[in-house]
Amino acid sequence: MRHPAKVTIVEVGPRDGLQNEAAAIPTADKIGFVDRLTAAGFARIEVSAFVSPKRVPQMADAAKVFSGVARRDGVRYSALVPNLAGLDRAHAAGVREIGIIAAASDTFSLKNINQTIDASLDNYRAVCARALELGIRVRGYVSTAFGCPFEGAIDPARVAEVAASLINMGAVEVAISDTIGIAHPRQVPEVVAAVADRIPASAIALHFHDTRGTALANVLAAMDLGIDTFDASAGGLGGCPYAPGATGNLATEDLVYMLDGLGVDTGVSLDALIAASSFIESRLDHLLPSRYYRAAASSRRS
Amino acid sequence: MRHPAKVTIVEVGPRDGLQNEAAAIPTADKIGFVDRLTAAGFARIEVSAFVSPKRVPQMADAAKVFSGVARRDGVRYSALVPNLAGLDRAHAAGVREIGIIAAASDTFSLKNINQTIDASLDNYRAVCARALELGIRVRGYVSTAFGCPFEGAIDPARVAEVAASLINMGAVEVAISDTIGIAHPRQVPEVVAAVADRIPASAIALHFHDTRGTALANVLAAMDLGIDTFDASAGGLGGCPYAPGATGNLATEDLVYMLDGLGVDTGVSLDALIAASSFIESRLDHLLPSRYYRAAASSRRS
Repeated sequence: MRHPAKVTIVEVGPRDGLQNEAAAIPTADKIGFVDRLTAAGFARIEVSAFVSPKRVPQMADAAKVFSGVARRDGVRYSALVPNLAGLDRAHAAGVREIGIIAAASDTFSLKNINQTIDASLDNYRAVCARALELGIRVRGYVSTAFGCPFEGAIDPARVAEVAASLINMGAVEVAISDTIGIAHPRQVPEVVAAVADRIPASAIALHFHDTRGTALANVLAAMDLGIDTFDASAGGLGGCPYAPGATGNLATEDLVYMLDGLGVDTGVSLDALIAASSFIESRLDHLLPSRYYRAAASSRRS
Repeated sequence: MRHPAKVTIVEVGPRDGLQNEAAAIPTADKIGFVDRLTAAGFARIEVSAFVSPKRVPQMADAAKVFSGVARRDGVRYSALVPNLAGLDRAHAAGVREIGIIAAASDTFSLKNINQTIDASLDNYRAVCARALELGIRVRGYVSTAFGCPFEGAIDPARVAEVAASLINMGAVEVAISDTIGIAHPRQVPEVVAAVADRIPASAIALHFHDTRGTALANVLAAMDLGIDTFDASAGGLGGCPYAPGATGNLATEDLVYMLDGLGVDTGVSLDALIAASSFIESRLDHLLPSRYYRAAASSRRS
């Protein structure tokens, strides 16, 4: 098995993770969390989302979080943006990189954002054009890329088509995302090959959820194909919206532990990452699910 | 990446899993659990241990469990045995396959069973000789094969040496065991290669713990080397004795889900396995940690 010498981790805990928390988290704690993640050495952090405060109250303070975060040179701090209004708010808050999420399943897209995939891509084309004018970098996501809670299996060619649309409108990278945590390692080469037929392999990132325990095995299979950019969430923050109470995002600690073992450079300090997770855990009403984090927490107690 | 067409899962939940439970579980429930595992299609189940009832009260009813289990033809039901007295009890209970555990770390061996590795191997030589006379099959384990809580790193050559001793005394298979759940995928080829230098690769099984989330990635790395026998525990039963509260054994559901996805035949029905786990979970004072099991349980509720 092969693996790259260096992997870039996109830390999505402050957005994809905290967005799942029911109880409001004070803005200062979100800022403290992001600053600790910066200190841990991440080169890319997804900080917040400029979405409807009514739909996602937890992200209502996106501008305040951005203005409070101590940005380190060379680190990319990004925010999700659903439309032009969100882009304007993000721009006003000094955001230099945005994320836009399209689905690979029409049913999911309709249920989630009340738009077909094609309609959402039309919207994103306008968002992208404006972002590029403003010198803002764009990252695309393709959600439900490994399976849809409504449609079931998704044709990898459809995933590739949506990814190509995002690249063609100006995204520099597309995160192929396993929204419901259903991917297994045989799917990884199937989906990656289909997408790599349409966009450069270097523009492919993978976003796995660990809902069924397979996320690290999927990362291993993806590295064997040369993929070197992975999303993960500190402490495993963030549940699975389609299986309440189950695990969501791949935990960054588990990923860094495996990559450290493999001798793959991530630039992230596992101890400093645990400090960041521990900080935010102390602000939550539940424990974080990361296996590595829990083992480390237990060793600290004993 | 390659993988075998067929994998044998050794289900260790009734022994390695339940042994970790503080509260006494009624014998009838243990029997009900094993019978449900038989129904799920396992070819091999580690049922109990004929160890000192004083040291491990949870296993005191080993003989009763064995006499109550409905054995299916072709299924191998095994028990751990620490010494000749345990072997005699196992034999009287009609056990046809035993397991013996040697460590790859002298410090661990001394702390755990108050014997050096060499002294434990002398003891096992006598156990093996008697077992073979009685027509009882012997499986060896090498514990702390990927790291020791006291000594840290373990030389793969030492693991191979202990494995070879077990095979030479008559064991048909050796389970190379990650007792503290510290293994990562780079170690897998290192350790497997060292062991395969001394014993046939077909006699190598792997026993991973998921304490740091890497167990399935390790299985994937091992299958790439042609290994086709893995231990796992229903629902993820069993904690890590060196990190209280952390995850222990690899959860069988997570393993079967990944292998099903890869098209690897295990003979195990995931739904029937979940029924077995659900049965035993209802007798415990805590939830089972298997990621897949939790996602399935959550889907059932919602």
